[in-house]
Amino acid sequence: MREFHDIEAIQWSGGKLRWLDQTRLPSQETWKESDDISEIAAAIKRLEVRGAPQIGVVAAFGIAITANKKHHDIKEKLDAIKEAANVLGKTRPTAVNLFWAINRMLEKANSLKESNTTEREFAISMIGEAVRIRDEDVEANRDMGRHGGSLFSSGDVILSHCNAGSLATAGFGTSIGCIRQAWIDGKDVSVIQTHTAPLYQGARLTMYELLHDGIPAKLIADDMVAYAMKFEHVTKVIVGADRILADGTVFNKIGTYGIAILAKHHNIPFYVAAPLSTIDIKRTYEDVKDGSIIEKRSPDELKVLLGKAKVAPDNAEAINPAFDMTPPELVSAIITEKGILRYPYTKAIADLMKGA
Amino acid sequence: MREFHDIEAIQWSGGKLRWLDQTRLPSQETWKESDDISEIAAAIKRLEVRGAPQIGVVAAFGIAITANKKHHDIKEKLDAIKEAANVLGKTRPTAVNLFWAINRMLEKANSLKESNTTEREFAISMIGEAVRIRDEDVEANRDMGRHGGSLFSSGDVILSHCNAGSLATAGFGTSIGCIRQAWIDGKDVSVIQTHTAPLYQGARLTMYELLHDGIPAKLIADDMVAYAMKFEHVTKVIVGADRILADGTVFNKIGTYGIAILAKHHNIPFYVAAPLSTIDIKRTYEDVKDGSIIEKRSPDELKVLLGKAKVAPDNAEAINPAFDMTPPELVSAIITEKGILRYPYTKAIADLMKGA
Repeated sequence: MREFHDIEAIQWSGGKLRWLDQTRLPSQETWKESDDISEIAAAIKRLEVRGAPQIGVVAAFGIAITANKKHHDIKEKLDAIKEAANVLGKTRPTAVNLFWAINRMLEKANSLKESNTTEREFAISMIGEAVRIRDEDVEANRDMGRHGGSLFSSGDVILSHCNAGSLATAGFGTSIGCIRQAWIDGKDVSVIQTHTAPLYQGARLTMYELLHDGIPAKLIADDMVAYAMKFEHVTKVIVGADRILADGTVFNKIGTYGIAILAKHHNIPFYVAAPLSTIDIKRTYEDVKDGSIIEKRSPDELKVLLGKAKVAPDNAEAINPAFDMTPPELVSAIITEKGILRYPYTKAIADLMKGA
Repeated sequence: MREFHDIEAIQWSGGKLRWLDQTRLPSQETWKESDDISEIAAAIKRLEVRGAPQIGVVAAFGIAITANKKHHDIKEKLDAIKEAANVLGKTRPTAVNLFWAINRMLEKANSLKESNTTEREFAISMIGEAVRIRDEDVEANRDMGRHGGSLFSSGDVILSHCNAGSLATAGFGTSIGCIRQAWIDGKDVSVIQTHTAPLYQGARLTMYELLHDGIPAKLIADDMVAYAMKFEHVTKVIVGADRILADGTVFNKIGTYGIAILAKHHNIPFYVAAPLSTIDIKRTYEDVKDGSIIEKRSPDELKVLLGKAKVAPDNAEAINPAFDMTPPELVSAIITEKGILRYPYTKAIADLMKGA
């Protein structure tokens, strides 16, 4: 059993939200704090906080902070909460956890309204709900890690894309949590980590986390995945998810769909680890197959890398989808906090959500 | 018929080689010149000049420049030429055109030695041979363009990786030459161009060339290839090659192998355009399948992008293969200056090389 120390990138302290600004990693560890809803929404939009589960936790605290402000009466407080939910809901369109967390906080607020609490009790209950969402996320990740960790053995070379570690969650991580658990259990696994252009979360954040844990890892550029599968002898792939549909379709960081195809070609298992809060039970691949649901970001992110390295002529056009969709038949298993699902997923997901 | 103006990135002028420093594109158009063999070898190694056909042309001029220096006698000149060949041969191990061009210049030198020419005639003949290699490359590219251009129609969305345009050759380009020819012929094609990490030749050089020609093009990051195939409706893929083996195995810029797999998954034709000088008739996939022949470059290229944008912790490990190998069964056609070959390639390549 190896020791580990989690990176707690989201903290609740003195009525304010404190977060590690992930846009500055790995060069600088800069902490920011705020009790202002528009600042918190801007931090989500600028990717200072990021990762589907973490965005959900931050949004929950954003609403709790709003509930904690002085208002004339409960009606005014509820209006402010709805306005905060509205602002937060517009920050990132793809991650379903965001809407899940916002809705849970709105439901809590509605139930509090009906129970006729004082303003102070209302605020305390709302903060308590946000803390619960955070703690449940960490607990879900630990459970997910136990399930997912069992899929790995000593000698496994695990390909990882983007960041779904502590920095993408409230703590421990989803896909990286599974790798960490295997490592903590004493299994000698190693990681091949992609750059993850254009924002390089894999290089900047996951490499930082893996070094923090002491897990052996090698960085590759995104066009080296097929090479690594063949010549670096990748044995497993694991990624997180921003949204999983009722049939097991996986929305995740751009590049995931291609990696899933390459894994299939090389007969390498392709795993997805995500909490139940990621599941969008109302939609299937058929509903989203035109891709319009996918967040498109600024072309500038591709033309001047991280705002520093100009790589394209000024007048070049570029497209910048932030996510892609992997159809369920390319996914070998979905790891949740409630256990491991195998293809076909529709019934397994429906059963799980009924029980949840 | 549309007009076009070629970028002549390699020029011979007043006994010196003049080249456009491609490491500075697209921000700056910097020209350099030299008649010093170690400076020319350094320019190849630093990728100021690059692309398999262009490296061959530069090496030929490097040897011609050596032949053009004052020497005590023909024996001393031949020794200097052999030494220059040795220095040039060590610059880039994967591109076979380099060795092809060096050998052709050495053969020319040997034949001149036997014909007992004066020192001046010797030098003039060597320069003439280098000029011939350059002109033949442009001519081969024009022929290749005519063959390859016939594969494209109006409406085609062509995915391109790295740079195999004018800047990778003596002029016109190989894979980009095929796209250019279709465009010159009035076909309304468009291009999806990859970044091509870690040196971003696709973004820096091919986007620059496509804008120069006015061909509609959109830049993507390397992890967007599968997305683009699906949602940007890519209809064809074309790439260049650094080496093609006797069975049709293609060595090309890292990422090519993955793109070939993704093309197959999406039922998109995958074309390779390269001159006969790229063919390594002595080897097949079996001889090279351990990948040890592939040039590995510095990990720093992945950790600080273009020397400007730091993306990974200082102590992160990284691997940096410059090329990969695509097995022949993933290649829909190989376009050469002598015509289009179709899978299986072994007999077709052997026949072509006999005729060449």
